[in-house]
Amino acid sequence: MAAADLDLLFIEDPSNMAWLTGYDGWSFYVHQGVLVFHDVDPIWWGRGQDANGAVRTCWMDDAHVAHYPDHFVQSRTCHPMEMLAAMIRDRGYGAKRIGLELENYYFSAKAFLVLQSELPDAILADATALVNWQRAVKSEEELVFMRKAARISEAIVDHIAARVEPGVKKSDIVAEIYGKAIRGLDEDWGDYPAIVPLLPSGSDAAAPHLTWDGRTFEKGAATFFEIAGCYRRYHAPFCRTVYLGTPPDEIRRAEGALVEGLEAGLDAARAGNMACDVARALAGPLEKAGIDRAARAGYPIGLSYPPDWGERTISIRFEDTTVLEPGMTFHFMPGLWMKDWGLEITESILITPDGPAECLCDRPRRLFVKE
Amino acid sequence: MAAADLDLLFIEDPSNMAWLTGYDGWSFYVHQGVLVFHDVDPIWWGRGQDANGAVRTCWMDDAHVAHYPDHFVQSRTCHPMEMLAAMIRDRGYGAKRIGLELENYYFSAKAFLVLQSELPDAILADATALVNWQRAVKSEEELVFMRKAARISEAIVDHIAARVEPGVKKSDIVAEIYGKAIRGLDEDWGDYPAIVPLLPSGSDAAAPHLTWDGRTFEKGAATFFEIAGCYRRYHAPFCRTVYLGTPPDEIRRAEGALVEGLEAGLDAARAGNMACDVARALAGPLEKAGIDRAARAGYPIGLSYPPDWGERTISIRFEDTTVLEPGMTFHFMPGLWMKDWGLEITESILITPDGPAECLCDRPRRLFVKE
Repeated sequence: MAAADLDLLFIEDPSNMAWLTGYDGWSFYVHQGVLVFHDVDPIWWGRGQDANGAVRTCWMDDAHVAHYPDHFVQSRTCHPMEMLAAMIRDRGYGAKRIGLELENYYFSAKAFLVLQSELPDAILADATALVNWQRAVKSEEELVFMRKAARISEAIVDHIAARVEPGVKKSDIVAEIYGKAIRGLDEDWGDYPAIVPLLPSGSDAAAPHLTWDGRTFEKGAATFFEIAGCYRRYHAPFCRTVYLGTPPDEIRRAEGALVEGLEAGLDAARAGNMACDVARALAGPLEKAGIDRAARAGYPIGLSYPPDWGERTISIRFEDTTVLEPGMTFHFMPGLWMKDWGLEITESILITPDGPAECLCDRPRRLFVKE
Repeated sequence: MAAADLDLLFIEDPSNMAWLTGYDGWSFYVHQGVLVFHDVDPIWWGRGQDANGAVRTCWMDDAHVAHYPDHFVQSRTCHPMEMLAAMIRDRGYGAKRIGLELENYYFSAKAFLVLQSELPDAILADATALVNWQRAVKSEEELVFMRKAARISEAIVDHIAARVEPGVKKSDIVAEIYGKAIRGLDEDWGDYPAIVPLLPSGSDAAAPHLTWDGRTFEKGAATFFEIAGCYRRYHAPFCRTVYLGTPPDEIRRAEGALVEGLEAGLDAARAGNMACDVARALAGPLEKAGIDRAARAGYPIGLSYPPDWGERTISIRFEDTTVLEPGMTFHFMPGLWMKDWGLEITESILITPDGPAECLCDRPRRLFVKE
């Protein structure tokens, strides 16, 4: 905040709210947020009924939980930001520099316009991803959570590999994926992942974000499974692809190039290298195989809420020159979405103090073929 | 659009996108939307890889699917709205009146500011909820989907009533709820609900939006279950409360008043009456029992994506004078979140041409007690 010359920071991103205060609840469908100060503890601010959740989950004392009346919720005549602006004025920040997450889910254009009109003397500055960047390097405690999430991811992928057969309904497999994800392992119960399981087959796998239906798996098609175990909101995304039958040469060649590219990328994912170095290492073997891959190949992961388990800071792509640091975690995600098939083999990785990236999950890095 | 004096409408709300075009995919974590014209078919616009999903799910021909390059995704140097603005200018709308959903998840403040700067000659008007309001009265086909969702909701609640016992882990019950929700019934596979299952117990039930953990259900506490079956993105939310042991008089009295209030509200939920009439009918018995309930008591439901299964138009509360029409559907949701307990008994309802509201689910309207 000091470096960004901000007197006050208002955070509406639920993952940033949780990281700053511990607040955890499915209440981000109404306006809420955290006010961050230089000199005193933050204030959680939200809907009256959710203040009950804040006093139960935040580390600040109850005097640092503020709320607005229910008739502001999804109203056509008033807006919760009127209440927030009044609180900001009352605390003496009405003519100060206030940072806002302008590019963020949940902080709407209208929220910005209301604050602008209610705080005419303030300077509203863009503080998009300011907190997200602080989250890039994970603490040891965070890594403990992510490793637990990775154990859940492995259990899900093991179950998929065992269970997917021609004639099995996709919706049944999704039900089982949720079962594994939420039962968790031993005492480590699972949380909801920030993205639902994705498992398109055959030519639908050209479209990476279609969700499931009740059709059955068929012989002669690849299905990729994009899933994440989630432990106390920390994610370890993990993707593997199952081919039922004998894969055509085209897919086998793509698998070979992709695995080679992944391994080159893991080797390049070292502290001191840049995000683009990983993207370039990956691209080499793919280009040699004639695969032109334009999409980014990964993003930081950790604490997240829907709709995305990425942290929206660094991207593993040619344009990104961010220097990698020990403790950073990424979903190294070079999905191939071709004209009439798709292939995903991915790793959740940790940048180590020296040496190549460490994979959080430990399962064969290949196409799973069931003849 | 004509009534709002709009030449062009840009829609970023995923449920409005789906309602207008059929598009269905978990891609709303990046900027995407639908351009709606007066004279030609709408254009789906989004990320390159998601255009593959659009051509598979939208009713328009493929020429009405447009996309932007991947390096615009979550970039620090460029914004997808630059591409959208260029398309709007190219089509001759650069100096026209353009409607935007200013109060909506996913349309960020930054998206608005970029459009404003890229379209200096356009008039950017607030079209928040313009499409949502068109969705208020459901078609017969939509009601078929909602009734299928209601069958799934009933199956989930039956399972909860049978399975919840002292010593059972909450995370296990959530896994089973997802199992029922997604397996669906017979050929009717289930879709993901827009809100995760909520099931706080005892004093935590004062906080309506806390999610689960791995603790066990205990004797001497009420747990409310807020769930929804979902069929092809149409929801039928349904809440019931389970008490393990003998409920204290306070909760029994609240149950009696709540059920009486619900029944009065159902009787008031008639075509021609107003939303506030339902809220007032509910409030009578509650006030008589000394329960002061400030929160709104319901909202329209139907097609939805996370983070909310409400439609964000009408609210069942004292301030809302919207006249009810046949075919409107609501979650009549008068949750009681008291200081150290919570009670939810709710109904998904349909406004009929004459007579009281029809409940989409058919299960006893009472506290479920397991001694």
